[in-house]
Amino acid sequence: MAGKVFFSVSMSLDGFIAPESVPVEEELFSPGRQDDPEVRRWMAQWTELQKWVFPLRFFRENLKLGEGGEEGRDNDMARETFERTGASVMGRRMFDLGERSWPEEAPFHTPVFVVTHTKRDPWERPGGTTFHFVDDGIEHAVDRAREAAGDRDVRIAGGGATILEHLNAGLVDEFSITLSPVLFGSGTRLFDGVDASRIALEPIRSEPSPRVTHLTYAVHPR
Amino acid sequence: MAGKVFFSVSMSLDGFIAPESVPVEEELFSPGRQDDPEVRRWMAQWTELQKWVFPLRFFRENLKLGEGGEEGRDNDMARETFERTGASVMGRRMFDLGERSWPEEAPFHTPVFVVTHTKRDPWERPGGTTFHFVDDGIEHAVDRAREAAGDRDVRIAGGGATILEHLNAGLVDEFSITLSPVLFGSGTRLFDGVDASRIALEPIRSEPSPRVTHLTYAVHPR
Repeated sequence: MAGKVFFSVSMSLDGFIAPESVPVEEELFSPGRQDDPEVRRWMAQWTELQKWVFPLRFFRENLKLGEGGEEGRDNDMARETFERTGASVMGRRMFDLGERSWPEEAPFHTPVFVVTHTKRDPWERPGGTTFHFVDDGIEHAVDRAREAAGDRDVRIAGGGATILEHLNAGLVDEFSITLSPVLFGSGTRLFDGVDASRIALEPIRSEPSPRVTHLTYAVHPR
Repeated sequence: MAGKVFFSVSMSLDGFIAPESVPVEEELFSPGRQDDPEVRRWMAQWTELQKWVFPLRFFRENLKLGEGGEEGRDNDMARETFERTGASVMGRRMFDLGERSWPEEAPFHTPVFVVTHTKRDPWERPGGTTFHFVDDGIEHAVDRAREAAGDRDVRIAGGGATILEHLNAGLVDEFSITLSPVLFGSGTRLFDGVDASRIALEPIRSEPSPRVTHLTYAVHPR
């Protein structure tokens, strides 16, 4: 039985999934940049968007931050998203940024297929994450991820442009949005450039928690 | 006890509260335009966004469309929004459009304060709606609406630009969004131009129904 292809993101109420880029994004996490006001603005917005995740038991466990953390519906949702994922697909920019910021034991613990234009040998990390570099298009990346995922699901991990490319290409079966009570005003919009005339949504699930609202939709052609 | 100032809109998942304008918006509802493809596109998107409202008992009752209609949570929400409203504020464009499309018994049944640059005598409609034209700014319109509303609430009825002007001016205490499972791709964005750095949101309520999700936030300065 083949799994589904999905994405799952936190979105601001005004539709953004990332703050406006800083001038040299690759250096976002470099120690010398942390006093830069632009970098601080980026970090503050990002932290506010993802605030619901940090206190969770699952988040602490997955990043080996130690015991404890909150249980409850938010935690269950984060854990379900992780557990259903048998493989991920991500864009090159997200990989480049993550390569500088993930801990040595990257938080995927599954194969990850990076859509890129550059050939590179697979990069195996401790803890079960192996990055594979796919240079022949998103369909092929999704095919390889499906195969690797077996009967689990394939997550289009990001970033925004990569998610949208898969959505517009009809490769996404379902998606989840965690709607955070925050306004960004600018940044990367999840649905910027969406081919709205060809996509119909079916509401699957809508679950409020005290902090956020978890929304899930199935994607159909129209 | 003074009431609250709020707005309540239906929003697409990608953040739009109205489709992209047609060339001559004032003629949107004129019989001669109904075969115009642009007008049909506008109508189709608008209908999809508001689809959750049309089957409701309250909607049929309020527009005198006859008996029947659905009860349930969506209906309760629509009725609550109507019943809490003691007066409305709206922009001139919304009024101009409505003047051509509301039934003779306009659906407000309360005083409505229209923000405009033109002086005009109050316009009284059957069924309790009286339009007052306010030409000295939004603060004054809200003050007059508060006074008229007594201990009920003041609704900023629309359109999008008028709602945003009030939100950015710190005049809105609370708002509700009915999130519809639809993507527009273009149109009028609710939060386009929002002064995000000065607005903090507090989630008050999040309620799913089978068709939509009803979200309510309190607005605080930050």
